[in-house]
Amino acid sequence: MKKLVVQKYGGSSLASAERIKAVAGRVAATREAGSDVVVVASAMGDTTDELIALARQVAKRPPERELDLLLHTGEVVSCALLAMALGDLGHEAVALTGFQAGIKTERRFGRARILAVNPHRILQELSAGRIPIVAGFQGFTDELDITTLGRGGSDTTAVALAASLGADRCEIYTDVEGVYTADPRVVPEARKLKDISYEEMLELAFQGARVMHTRAVEIGAIYNIPILVASSFTDAPGTLIHGEVDMERRNKVRGIAHDTDVAKVTVLGVPDRPGIAAAIFEPLAEAGISVDVIVQNASVEGLTDLSFTVSRNDLEKAFSLVRPVAREIGARGCVSATNLAKVSIVGAGMQNAPGFAARMFRTLASHNINIEMITTSEIRITCIISEDRVQEAVRALHRAFQLEKPD
Amino acid sequence: MKKLVVQKYGGSSLASAERIKAVAGRVAATREAGSDVVVVASAMGDTTDELIALARQVAKRPPERELDLLLHTGEVVSCALLAMALGDLGHEAVALTGFQAGIKTERRFGRARILAVNPHRILQELSAGRIPIVAGFQGFTDELDITTLGRGGSDTTAVALAASLGADRCEIYTDVEGVYTADPRVVPEARKLKDISYEEMLELAFQGARVMHTRAVEIGAIYNIPILVASSFTDAPGTLIHGEVDMERRNKVRGIAHDTDVAKVTVLGVPDRPGIAAAIFEPLAEAGISVDVIVQNASVEGLTDLSFTVSRNDLEKAFSLVRPVAREIGARGCVSATNLAKVSIVGAGMQNAPGFAARMFRTLASHNINIEMITTSEIRITCIISEDRVQEAVRALHRAFQLEKPD
Repeated sequence: MKKLVVQKYGGSSLASAERIKAVAGRVAATREAGSDVVVVASAMGDTTDELIALARQVAKRPPERELDLLLHTGEVVSCALLAMALGDLGHEAVALTGFQAGIKTERRFGRARILAVNPHRILQELSAGRIPIVAGFQGFTDELDITTLGRGGSDTTAVALAASLGADRCEIYTDVEGVYTADPRVVPEARKLKDISYEEMLELAFQGARVMHTRAVEIGAIYNIPILVASSFTDAPGTLIHGEVDMERRNKVRGIAHDTDVAKVTVLGVPDRPGIAAAIFEPLAEAGISVDVIVQNASVEGLTDLSFTVSRNDLEKAFSLVRPVAREIGARGCVSATNLAKVSIVGAGMQNAPGFAARMFRTLASHNINIEMITTSEIRITCIISEDRVQEAVRALHRAFQLEKPD
Repeated sequence: MKKLVVQKYGGSSLASAERIKAVAGRVAATREAGSDVVVVASAMGDTTDELIALARQVAKRPPERELDLLLHTGEVVSCALLAMALGDLGHEAVALTGFQAGIKTERRFGRARILAVNPHRILQELSAGRIPIVAGFQGFTDELDITTLGRGGSDTTAVALAASLGADRCEIYTDVEGVYTADPRVVPEARKLKDISYEEMLELAFQGARVMHTRAVEIGAIYNIPILVASSFTDAPGTLIHGEVDMERRNKVRGIAHDTDVAKVTVLGVPDRPGIAAAIFEPLAEAGISVDVIVQNASVEGLTDLSFTVSRNDLEKAFSLVRPVAREIGARGCVSATNLAKVSIVGAGMQNAPGFAARMFRTLASHNINIEMITTSEIRITCIISEDRVQEAVRALHRAFQLEKPD
């Protein structure tokens, strides 16, 4: 049977007419090599930001439904152009909006989740010998309204399509050559990984490695879709995200992630009794604010301090929701800070090797970097530190765990 | 019962964020004055031309389906922005694509005709107290593909919506203040008409007065929808296009139209026998080329010359279709010319007053302007003349028929 590949091209890969023609050439080459191919396209270059800027010029608070309708046009434009460019190369292609491609989502504008994919039209076009070019980042509701999936949503579209089509592979083409042991702009000796497990990629992505959208990796993991992350600007091999974890590479730190989009809220002098945490976090969840790290100190005389981090964009809203709750529950007060960052070490199997945490803390201490908060998962240890020390911390950890050395 | 008005705003009325806010103010004022209102919006400024230019950068011959998908985004963008701007003024508005608004068309990309309007969603939004903002110029096919209605198609969307909603009036807001007795750029003393009949407007539009799209006027005539043409930049009263022809104004020339988008094809030495005209014009019709004026000379020794005009864009295609036919039927040859223009006088009831044609021809003769072809309808006389004399002809005819004088 013919192989089926889903290829996703990001905005920087499609930033100009020239780039669109170059991408068309890559798609054509895949097809000519014998695979069936479905393409998912992002909006050209900075189109989405430009449309948001336009929205802000006409309205102080653009309604979310209208904003999604506005933004979804960016991907439709690049899909139509890419289909045209493929036609010029002698390959019949058909551009499809998220609606036409059957991407059904929940009715939550700005960050809708995909509920189902009905690939009927895509399969029909494939069997007619055409290359479907699907607008990423978007879907539609029961009411036939247009939704968007949030930043990076085109990755999610691509992996969800690959899952629903039973594709052999999903390829994410972007402006970086793959997943690195750390951000190469911070660590010059950072090394590109040949492959990485879904779990490791998830932790890296969630901790700030912006190579791929978290939800896309989750869907890949659930449906076991191998995902190649590679550059559309070169022919370098890229990084394969997949399920098989090489035994040799277990119990190793695989990458260092960092993120400066961190804001902290601390509720001071919280009475230490059941239901308090729920009272604080329920309003945040209802408002759709993602809380990242949560730390509660040991109780002293029945009072404790409770800190949590959110993305900086959400700080104002989070603070305004928490303040009245703090008053109600009799806390002493609330403070917030934005001069923070987080740095994480990630590697499958770290939970079985206790030395990692110690080495991480020792490395930071030897650079005189103070740790404000600590949180861990099975395959990750994260420290919240001062923002102005984060690059130094990443470089020090990269060296301490010898990530520049080949696997 | 509440009045219902459909308002259409053209591209120049929506060319910037500032203009969109100004239009939102006009829509809000209509609503606040007590009418229900449905808005139809064109793409901002030169968006459509810019998208076409982009398409030409990626493909020599952009496929029509993909071009329509590309172009339809322009109207979606302006609708979403206008809905946001209305929200900012305290009016809940909902932007709808042609598909969401139920504009069903035939599957003919680039110039689809509307087959039906299903106003279900619009009525639902109106009854919920929201202002529907509908993307003009676009519709969808049975296969859920996006079509466009051709240049000026937003006018058609507006009048078709007005008809299907049983609106009291359709208002077309543009960058001119109404319908003039002639193009004011050519005739400085041209006068704005207070009202005009559908038929007169049709002839003026068809003969080159670019104020309104012909198909929109036709639909208005069929469903008897009064259409106001006015400027969105001023509060001047505009021109009402409607069915009641004032008796006082019959038997008068109402306007002079001119058009330089004229190309002529002449088939020389055509054998004068039945079926020849059909052989020549059938292939043009099949290719979707509109033939305007057709003139066949009296036959001399069984041979005749047959001339017809097409728009300049269609000349190359028309010529390539006619040449082989001319050879087959034994004609002497084919020639074409593009240095022509047409000038028309239009007025209901002209057919009953034979003096009009004579005065038109005498006026042109007194300016030493040669008439190449003549064609007439019940309410119009059109002369094909040399392009470099057309402005002089329009000015002379405007004076000869005293159009500067009030009705």
